[in-house]
Amino acid sequence: MRKSNRRQFITETGKVAVMGGLGTITNTMGENPLKKKFIHHVFFWLKNPNSEADKQKLIEGLQTLTKIKGIRAFQIGVPANTNREVIERSYAVSELFVFDNPEDQAAYQNDPIHLKFVENCSALWEKVTVFDTVEV
Amino acid sequence: MRKSNRRQFITETGKVAVMGGLGTITNTMGENPLKKKFIHHVFFWLKNPNSEADKQKLIEGLQTLTKIKGIRAFQIGVPANTNREVIERSYAVSELFVFDNPEDQAAYQNDPIHLKFVENCSALWEKVTVFDTVEV
Repeated sequence: MRKSNRRQFITETGKVAVMGGLGTITNTMGENPLKKKFIHHVFFWLKNPNSEADKQKLIEGLQTLTKIKGIRAFQIGVPANTNREVIERSYAVSELFVFDNPEDQAAYQNDPIHLKFVENCSALWEKVTVFDTVEV
Repeated sequence: MRKSNRRQFITETGKVAVMGGLGTITNTMGENPLKKKFIHHVFFWLKNPNSEADKQKLIEGLQTLTKIKGIRAFQIGVPANTNREVIERSYAVSELFVFDNPEDQAAYQNDPIHLKFVENCSALWEKVTVFDTVEV
């Protein structure tokens, strides 16, 4: 029975691994991973759009934000290579943060890491546009 | 032993449920669910911004897109209640689709469901702005 129990344990462990995989964002069989989430998407235009150093400093600053409590998923991004007329691609860098609810995004705004980022990096950008969306 | 085995099965099943939860986008212990993803975020301004009927027709059209192959996560959204100076909230509806790569997003553009949506709904909007981003 000992061996039988172990085999059963392994079987269940196998199920655990599978279930874990099904839960990820690449799952197309389960629930939409963004269901009921709060999306905070920010686009940055640099004062010196041709300064690779400024762009890198902003990217490094944005990467510090990803450690803030309540961020469930994120992308520090740049424009893709797509280039149709309706596509806006004049910004230098973007940040996309996913929160469980509006309260967590509000708390993020006041997190010391976020305040430090603004202090260190706000001189780099000429314009910021934010899109905060919730599920319809 | 039968009863003992059943108890163990129940225990393992409990673990399965827990692990499944850890695998979702709400997991903060695992890998970032948006790692290396292609983000396609679109904002729509209506020709008749005060028409609730037009807004609903657009939302219903957008919801048909979520069935398209290759979409790993999505949000059909509206502006959140946040309202700082830098926040753009003049659009009526938004769509956020997550793809594994640029090729899947390109295929989505030509999917018959997407082409049908444009045919049925493009008369509703005055302006569309698209942000396609990839991880820096």
